[in-house]
Amino acid sequence: MTTNNANEDMTIKNVTVLGTGVLGSQIAFQTGYAGLAVTAYDISDEILAKSKQSFEQLAARYEREVDGAAGGPARAALSRIDYSSELGEAAREADLVIEAVPEKLELKREVYAQLGQLAPEKTIFATNSSSLLPSAMAESTGRPERFLAMHFANEIWVHNTAEIMGHPGTDPAVYRVVVEFARRIGMVPIELKKEQPGYIINSLSIPWLGAAMELLVAGVADPETIDNVWHIDKEAPEGPFQNLDRVGLNTAYNIYAASEDPKLQAVATYLKEHYIDQGKLGQPTGEGFYKYSAAT
Amino acid sequence: MTTNNANEDMTIKNVTVLGTGVLGSQIAFQTGYAGLAVTAYDISDEILAKSKQSFEQLAARYEREVDGAAGGPARAALSRIDYSSELGEAAREADLVIEAVPEKLELKREVYAQLGQLAPEKTIFATNSSSLLPSAMAESTGRPERFLAMHFANEIWVHNTAEIMGHPGTDPAVYRVVVEFARRIGMVPIELKKEQPGYIINSLSIPWLGAAMELLVAGVADPETIDNVWHIDKEAPEGPFQNLDRVGLNTAYNIYAASEDPKLQAVATYLKEHYIDQGKLGQPTGEGFYKYSAAT
Repeated sequence: MTTNNANEDMTIKNVTVLGTGVLGSQIAFQTGYAGLAVTAYDISDEILAKSKQSFEQLAARYEREVDGAAGGPARAALSRIDYSSELGEAAREADLVIEAVPEKLELKREVYAQLGQLAPEKTIFATNSSSLLPSAMAESTGRPERFLAMHFANEIWVHNTAEIMGHPGTDPAVYRVVVEFARRIGMVPIELKKEQPGYIINSLSIPWLGAAMELLVAGVADPETIDNVWHIDKEAPEGPFQNLDRVGLNTAYNIYAASEDPKLQAVATYLKEHYIDQGKLGQPTGEGFYKYSAAT
Repeated sequence: MTTNNANEDMTIKNVTVLGTGVLGSQIAFQTGYAGLAVTAYDISDEILAKSKQSFEQLAARYEREVDGAAGGPARAALSRIDYSSELGEAAREADLVIEAVPEKLELKREVYAQLGQLAPEKTIFATNSSSLLPSAMAESTGRPERFLAMHFANEIWVHNTAEIMGHPGTDPAVYRVVVEFARRIGMVPIELKKEQPGYIINSLSIPWLGAAMELLVAGVADPETIDNVWHIDKEAPEGPFQNLDRVGLNTAYNIYAASEDPKLQAVATYLKEHYIDQGKLGQPTGEGFYKYSAAT
C-alpha cells in the first residue's frame, strides 16, 4: 500500500498549527475542513479551552457562509482537530507545521529553535508571518531548506489566497509540496519568486490605503467620497476606507506609525486621535470610518 | 417666461466643449445625450470632420452598451451637437465651456486668454485637465471666480465620476452650479474641498499601480499572479495590470518617467523596454500585459 520513495515522503497528511489566534484558528479549521488531520497547538490548556469555542464559532460561520458546509461537513472538520499544549507532542506526527504565533521575531526564533529539535526530520515548517521575512528565521529552524513562508488572509474561506514565499535556501521541491498543499485545502496558491516584505497583498494595499488616508488628513474629501470614486472607476465593491475598517484600524496604525515617511506618520497620528482613541477600530467594534450594525 | 435673477443666469443650457479628443468627444456626447445643446470645438474643419466620425462611433457604442440608448436617444444626442472651428462662434452662447485641449500648460493658458475675451461674462469655464491644477490657469481666464476643474474618466458612460475641484478664488456658487450640471448629465459629482494634484482617482491609482509595477520589475511575480491576489483579497474585478492595460501604458509611462523616485523611474524604463517599444500599449493596441481580441 505504501512506498518509501521521496515523493511519498513529501505528501502532507498531518498538519500542526502553532497558535490559535484569529488566523491560526482559521488555518487549522480550513485544513480540517479539507479532510486533513490537524493538531492545534497553543501554550496552555486554558487558552486551548477558549480556542475550542472559537472553532465552534468558525464551524457555525462556515455553515452559514460556505456552500456545502451545513449538514455535516463543518462539524466533521471539528472532529479532525486535536488539541495540544505540549510542543513535542503536537509536532510528533506532523508532515507540515504552520506557525501563526505572535508577530515578534525573537519569539518566533525561540519557537523554531525548540520545534527544530522536537519535530521529525521530514517535517516542513511554514510561517504565516505577515511582516517578517523567512530569511530572518531560517537558521533558527535547524532545517532552512524545509522552511518557507505561507501567508493567509483573514476570512480564509472567502479571501482564499495562500502567498507562498521561500527564502534563498528553501528547497524548490519543498516549495512545490507546499503549493500543492495550499491548493488541496482550497486556497489559490500565490507563488512569489523572491522574498518581498509584505508579500504581494500588503505591497499593493499599504500604498493604496496610505494614499487614501493622506487625502483624508489633507482635508481633500471625506471617506465616503473617496471610496465612491474607487467604486465607480474600478467597478470595485470595496473602497480603501471600507478596507481599513475590515482590516482594523489598529493594524493600519501600527504599519504607518513605523514608517519613516513624515506624511505616513501624520496618517498614524490622525488615525489615533480621530478614531483609535475613541474606540473606533473598524468593523469588529461596530464603528470605524463607517458605522456597522451589531457584529454577528 | 424668463426672469433675470441670479439663479436663472446660472442655469446651464448651452455647453461648449473645447477639443474633440477621446475625452472631449465623450464629454460632448454625454452632454448631448442628457438633452443639452452642445457645441464641439476643435482647431480645424479637417479635425472636426474626423470628430464627426468619432461621435457616430460613440452613438453606436451607447446603443450597444447603455440601457435605453438604442432606438432613438443615441441618435438624438448626435443631433444636439453643433461643430465649430472658430472659438468666438463656439463660445458665443455658452453657459459653460468645458476645456479638454492637450495637456500643456502654456497652450491651455493661451486658450483661456482668448476664450476670456470672446465668451460672454456669464460663461463658466471648467478644465478637464488631469494633471494641472486650476490655480495654474485661473488668472489667464480673466474670470478666476468663474473657473474650476471638472475631471472626467475615460468611458464616461460607465465610469461616470466628475471630480469637481475649485482653486482658492472659485466662487462657491459657481462650484454648486457645476456640481448640479454634472449630476444633470448623469455623472456622480465628486466634490474635492481643496486643490489636489491628480484629484482623488489618480492620487489613489498612481501609488497602487506603481507598487504593482515595482513587484513586477523586482521579479517577485508576474502580472497575472499579482492581479489574482487583488481579485481575491478585494473581491475586485480589475487588478492593477488590467487597469494599466485599460488606461494605456503610454499614460503610465509619462507619469512614472516624470517621477523623482528612482524606483518609479525604473518602472518607467521597464515599461518602455518591455512593452512600449514593442508596440504593446494596452487594450487599444490589442496587447499590453495581456492579449486582447480585436478591438470592437
